[in-house]
Amino acid sequence: MTESLKTGATIGILGGGQLGRMLSVAAARLGFKTCIFEPAGDCPASHVANFHMKAGYDDTDALKRFAESVDVITFEFENIPTSALDALEAVKPIHPNRRALATSQDRLTEKEFLRGLGLQTAHFADVSDTASLDAAIAKIGTPAILKTRRMGYDGKGQARLSSPQDAADALADMAGAPAILEGFVSFTHEVSVIAARNPEGAIACYDPGENVHVGGILSTTTVPAKLTAGQASDAVLIAARILNALDYVGVMGVELFVTAEGLIVNEIAPRVHNSGHWTQNGCTIDQFEQHIRAIAGWPLGDGTRFANVTMENLIGDDIAQIPDIAQSGAAIHLYGKADAKPGRKMGHVNRVTGPV
Amino acid sequence: MTESLKTGATIGILGGGQLGRMLSVAAARLGFKTCIFEPAGDCPASHVANFHMKAGYDDTDALKRFAESVDVITFEFENIPTSALDALEAVKPIHPNRRALATSQDRLTEKEFLRGLGLQTAHFADVSDTASLDAAIAKIGTPAILKTRRMGYDGKGQARLSSPQDAADALADMAGAPAILEGFVSFTHEVSVIAARNPEGAIACYDPGENVHVGGILSTTTVPAKLTAGQASDAVLIAARILNALDYVGVMGVELFVTAEGLIVNEIAPRVHNSGHWTQNGCTIDQFEQHIRAIAGWPLGDGTRFANVTMENLIGDDIAQIPDIAQSGAAIHLYGKADAKPGRKMGHVNRVTGPV
Repeated sequence: MTESLKTGATIGILGGGQLGRMLSVAAARLGFKTCIFEPAGDCPASHVANFHMKAGYDDTDALKRFAESVDVITFEFENIPTSALDALEAVKPIHPNRRALATSQDRLTEKEFLRGLGLQTAHFADVSDTASLDAAIAKIGTPAILKTRRMGYDGKGQARLSSPQDAADALADMAGAPAILEGFVSFTHEVSVIAARNPEGAIACYDPGENVHVGGILSTTTVPAKLTAGQASDAVLIAARILNALDYVGVMGVELFVTAEGLIVNEIAPRVHNSGHWTQNGCTIDQFEQHIRAIAGWPLGDGTRFANVTMENLIGDDIAQIPDIAQSGAAIHLYGKADAKPGRKMGHVNRVTGPV
Repeated sequence: MTESLKTGATIGILGGGQLGRMLSVAAARLGFKTCIFEPAGDCPASHVANFHMKAGYDDTDALKRFAESVDVITFEFENIPTSALDALEAVKPIHPNRRALATSQDRLTEKEFLRGLGLQTAHFADVSDTASLDAAIAKIGTPAILKTRRMGYDGKGQARLSSPQDAADALADMAGAPAILEGFVSFTHEVSVIAARNPEGAIACYDPGENVHVGGILSTTTVPAKLTAGQASDAVLIAARILNALDYVGVMGVELFVTAEGLIVNEIAPRVHNSGHWTQNGCTIDQFEQHIRAIAGWPLGDGTRFANVTMENLIGDDIAQIPDIAQSGAAIHLYGKADAKPGRKMGHVNRVTGPV
């Protein structure tokens, strides 16, 4: 078990985007220093961090110096090269652990892990070529979604098969990457549970949020989610089972489809999650501080929800709405990104819609 | 009137302590960059700021470069040398304005200003030597408090006169500095109003907080304060009158004594204020973001209080209580200071005691 980190210690964060930025602020609030490892200059996290090591994930010397300069390592994204993890882990502990990363980095491994826990997932089959795709279609049927096993996010690396005739085009979209065919899940809506676990095994889950995606990117998360008391309880128990099984330390986002037959696990993200941003204005301790507390070996904080909130992502030109939003009484959270490219997450807004 | 600042603009902050630190975080949340002007290295604000100009207030070149590198200037403390303000203001706007600074920098000017608005203050008299002190005692009586007119904070630069016999010792304590004798105010408790005003003249006041000092240093602030509805309303109206009279832009802390004869203004602080730290866990928009919104010419945010909170300062060795406090469910806010010297503010804790 990790000894608990003392105030003044330095937390290393792999990745300098908005999640790293909000993790840095939370770390500072608890008296920690932060060092961001990020190849890009002027990254969002560096604006609010003590140190920024600007280097690539293939720069073993830089990774080693980074690891030596910090007390514990965490990350804001899961697609970290294995070689980089090897170099880092030889020097300092990384939370969440390698198994959680390996599980979530590969959609096939992830689904097999979830099934092994007795949890429901979409039907799935491994796809590496035309023959295996044909076999997968025969097993699962259409409609179905072909996804790369690795490196997918925000709907990228996915192709939909409305009928078996779409097989060749879908496979071409994978560009030779190992893939997984997932059966279509008839769900009414998607919810996610943001769950935290510390090294002592204590678990704290935030109330499930209800997610709406537009164009494959999260658009809004609303709490409370439309769930029966039983479903809400199931959702939290599913998340806890996953965290315990992975001996997980940190915050995880668990996405669930709500169906007539119960909750189906869509995917897990071994990090703070866009669908947990509402906690910044709905709870005393938000998901970012909860993650820092967990990886620092501190007691988890009070994540009781005190407000109904709708979180709305500001994507690309949505940022132009800021003057109006500033008038509205909503809470604004911007990421300090210079250019509002299409599809780029520029910030988010939390609208408190009432007390619990 | 200031044009409203666009996201991506840089806010210059004079002073790198905990108030500058929390202002920087709030500025980042709204997409602003920050530059801290602070002679000391490794200062709390620099940990979460984009830039730190490490230079003294007598370094006119550095002040000029600082002013040129930012879009607007604000400060976390009021005792800024006039010469520095002259150098800065020649280049970029400073909020709050010079008049607010000049008024609050000098206890005599401050009291005369408040009386000029028809507000109640302690009885007071100007003291520069033995003769004027004797005259002041004759006018005001004892018990009374002799205070330096300038540069006092956290109870420093003050001497209590229980009887006229204490006059010589008290005057010696002033070390030749111009002073003011203040009559004793028989108050039941002290409250403060954290008030904000933007360039359009919009005003937003947080609910008054009740302050308890120990050894001249703020120990706790509790909301709601013990006030009748009439007193709470008076407190807010007094604060608004002061802000309007100064054409003030930013957040101000207004300390009030509660007496049987009404509210008596103790002092004003033209900046975010220790007694407003509870807003971080009691309101959607805290005092730090409210200040940034005001000086940026943005609409003020929603400062409605949604929780009852007690803020407790962690002073000196209080920091050793952090492991226990982390267990308690309270919200921790640490300042990243390395050494826990006696009397040094190391952090604070907000304990949410219930919904409003």
